[in-house]
Amino acid sequence: MKNLFKITFLLMSNLFMSLTISAQLPDPGFIIDEYTAIVMTDPQHDFLSPEGVAWDVVGKSVTENNTVENLESIFVLAKEHGIPVFVSPHYYYKHDHTWKFEGALEELMHHINMFDREDQLVVEGFEGSGADWLERYKKYIDQDYVTVASPHKIFGPEQNDLSLQLRKQKIDKVILCGMSGNLCVESHMRELIEDGFEVAVVGDATGSAQVPGFDGNAAAQTNFKMISSHVYSTKELENTLKSSKK
Amino acid sequence: MKNLFKITFLLMSNLFMSLTISAQLPDPGFIIDEYTAIVMTDPQHDFLSPEGVAWDVVGKSVTENNTVENLESIFVLAKEHGIPVFVSPHYYYKHDHTWKFEGALEELMHHINMFDREDQLVVEGFEGSGADWLERYKKYIDQDYVTVASPHKIFGPEQNDLSLQLRKQKIDKVILCGMSGNLCVESHMRELIEDGFEVAVVGDATGSAQVPGFDGNAAAQTNFKMISSHVYSTKELENTLKSSKK
Amino acid sequence: MKNLFKITFLLMSNLFMSLTISAQLPDPGFIIDEYTAIVMTDPQHDFLSPEGVAWDVVGKSVTENNTVENLESIFVLAKEHGIPVFVSPHYYYKHDHTWKFEGALEELMHHINMFDREDQLVVEGFEGSGADWLERYKKYIDQDYVTVASPHKIFGPEQNDLSLQLRKQKIDKVILCGMSGNLCVESHMRELIEDGFEVAVVGDATGSAQVPGFDGNAAAQTNFKMISSHVYSTKELENTLKSSKK
Amino acid sequence: MKNLFKITFLLMSNLFMSLTISAQLPDPGFIIDEYTAIVMTDPQHDFLSPEGVAWDVVGKSVTENNTVENLESIFVLAKEHGIPVFVSPHYYYKHDHTWKFEGALEELMHHINMFDREDQLVVEGFEGSGADWLERYKKYIDQDYVTVASPHKIFGPEQNDLSLQLRKQKIDKVILCGMSGNLCVESHMRELIEDGFEVAVVGDATGSAQVPGFDGNAAAQTNFKMISSHVYSTKELENTLKSSKK
Repeated sequence: MKNLFKITFLLMSNLFMSLTISAQLPDPGFIIDEYTAIVMTDPQHDFLSPEGVAWDVVGKSVTENNTVENLESIFVLAKEHGIPVFVSPHYYYKHDHTWKFEGALEELMHHINMFDREDQLVVEGFEGSGADWLERYKKYIDQDYVTVASPHKIFGPEQNDLSLQLRKQKIDKVILCGMSGNLCVESHMRELIEDGFEVAVVGDATGSAQVPGFDGNAAAQTNFKMISSHVYSTKELENTLKSSKK
Repeated sequence: MKNLFKITFLLMSNLFMSLTISAQLPDPGFIIDEYTAIVMTDPQHDFLSPEGVAWDVVGKSVTENNTVENLESIFVLAKEHGIPVFVSPHYYYKHDHTWKFEGALEELMHHINMFDREDQLVVEGFEGSGADWLERYKKYIDQDYVTVASPHKIFGPEQNDLSLQLRKQKIDKVILCGMSGNLCVESHMRELIEDGFEVAVVGDATGSAQVPGFDGNAAAQTNFKMISSHVYSTKELENTLKSSKK
Repeated sequence: MKNLFKITFLLMSNLFMSLTISAQLPDPGFIIDEYTAIVMTDPQHDFLSPEGVAWDVVGKSVTENNTVENLESIFVLAKEHGIPVFVSPHYYYKHDHTWKFEGALEELMHHINMFDREDQLVVEGFEGSGADWLERYKKYIDQDYVTVASPHKIFGPEQNDLSLQLRKQKIDKVILCGMSGNLCVESHMRELIEDGFEVAVVGDATGSAQVPGFDGNAAAQTNFKMISSHVYSTKELENTLKSSKK
Repeated sequence: MKNLFKITFLLMSNLFMSLTISAQLPDPGFIIDEYTAIVMTDPQHDFLSPEGVAWDVVGKSVTENNTVENLESIFVLAKEHGIPVFVSPHYYYKHDHTWKFEGALEELMHHINMFDREDQLVVEGFEGSGADWLERYKKYIDQDYVTVASPHKIFGPEQNDLSLQLRKQKIDKVILCGMSGNLCVESHMRELIEDGFEVAVVGDATGSAQVPGFDGNAAAQTNFKMISSHVYSTKELENTLKSSKK
């Protein structure tokens, strides 16, 4: 009898909590229409391949979220449903290594020669390098409906033409995914929102750096939830697109 | 004997871990010089007072971090050490309530009438409102060495003149603090870094929204650590300034 | 007979010239739809009133273009045709006078105390000042369909929330007018285009600084023509709106 | 006697006028120091070579200003005086030709296939194309102290990493030159000023589009004078650098 009260109390308490949560964290929602594009950041070797230089810090999260497969699913969905794709890559040129100051992970990325390329007019050695697309994504990126923006240089799209390329196609809603969750995806989310786009994020189509004491994936998922219009899972995105097709 | 091995192993393991961590998360460091300013976001009632409309979600973090007192300490340090202060406030005007779309916490903030003001040409009802400065900060803000930027409108300084005001004073390094950690402080950190500033953050001079399952403070501290040049505690900032003065 | 040849030659020559011009300077055109807004910069005393501090340099152009009346016509058209209006004002606060460097006309504007206001939290002395709206425009600006952005600080909207306010209303086309032509209107035109808006300008609803050797109005009209999607006259805008109404 | 009065009057009148002008158009001045860089836009075939696709509209101005030689002189001065150089190029990729709207000269540039390149990962056919550097400049650009930014996409640096590259080298003053005067140079001037740089322009190291009725060079020189901190001639820049060296 006592236990029944307890259970009831817990249930009520949970119900109250979830009402409170939903009051605290609204889910504004996101409707996919003809002005919606997919934006993918950094689908490149150094982040997504076990041979990539950043695998040590992101590999666990990429594996747990199933990021590599989820990104591939999104490429397939884009093709099936005619959704334009915009890729925002990360390249570091030789001159970027002369910068006089850097934040923590900027310093790390330069130190491990992540995303290194000679410069924008040299392609020798690029094919198959850490800066190149993940092999299995190449057939999806080499398509007419895919626009590759200039490289971003820290984490956000402030240094490239992503936002303009979207606007020149009359896009005003963005479904965001890619690498890494709490750095480039999140900086893209924040800047695109300040630029006036409606932004949803596919939470499990991202992966993040994790070091003892600092869980980049938890940080990313928290900020996606608090800041964007809606956080999809890859599965939910697939179901939404399928049901909208009928 | 077995325990000794165990302890030694743990110690070694910790040592190795911390070496690994430091390899993974460099601390680029930050030197405070004459081109350094303090930037404080949203030192306003609605965030920092138990009567403020956002206290329910941020009160716990503000209390635990000792944010209110730490921000006051930073105001005092700025005065003592002649460091210019730039405040980036958050106001929502009547017309902002007609926006056709919003992200999750944007929607919440509008729903609870956070930071509401009629418009920039009306000050009736402002004094003592949720949008006003915390009472104890007013004497620090009403000073010649404090510049109050135009209001930011989502979370970052993209919509106001903060960055220009800093540059017009030849500032190129920023020590960041204020409310809320994972939203406005973090968006300011990210944008100021893309704008080419060196940025340090005072971790415990921020507080963040926490709802079950999503800890904004943990997210903020993680991203401060991974993105900025250095994360100070208020105490460390105080000691650094004192020792540099001699 | 000789004269007839001459006239024919001149006509042919003009025809050829205009064909050449149109080949060189395409007129991409601009279609006013429900996503179109009017953006007006600086409809304030200091620019538009003979008592304003800048009248000496802009008065001739304002008079010749009939700017004051044309701007009023545009306010009336906006109301009649249900087009939202966004005003981007220019205010200089006390702290702006401590800037350590300025360009030529920035220096001039500060020197003559143009658009001076104490700060955003003080309105004493504002009414009727050089920073206030031109008296005859007040009834048009004090309307629900008019959004007044934060002040811009040099010439463009980079320092204010104009672009976001437009996007939050799903506006992606802008008809631009106001003061002064080659400074604020033109910087708004350039930045809004980089932000991905389609931009038309009402050429004679602007006026510009003219000093011997440097004709700001000619510069503005040249750059409007070369950069925007279409340059309207106020009359052409009126006719376009009237004919589209039927 | 009457004539003497007339001449005296004219002289006095001119004197008064020039005093008035100087009062109206201050020349804030520009001091070249170790934080100063040269920024050059579009030193490419299509603008600067008689074979370039834009020569018809810019050739006259380029010839009259002696732009090609003046830009070369600036490259030489940069080397002699150890001034870092940042080049902001203009490339149009295949996907840029699918934009759904464009301003007047954007439309023209696309129509004449100006600055065309396949994309950033393809260099076949680039060498010697209209998008390539002017041949005589290649030896100056291929240097350690020269940074080539990502391409701008309309006229300003909003779409590339120029501003960040400057800040990462602690540059806060810019001497601007290149092509074309009233489009890319001027948009760079305006945006860099909004970004908080001190900006001077070398007026005769630019050239502009001129079509009947619209003189882009006059527009550019007017706006350089009204907006920047100082307008140099190439000769004046040379003399200033030489005298500062002693």
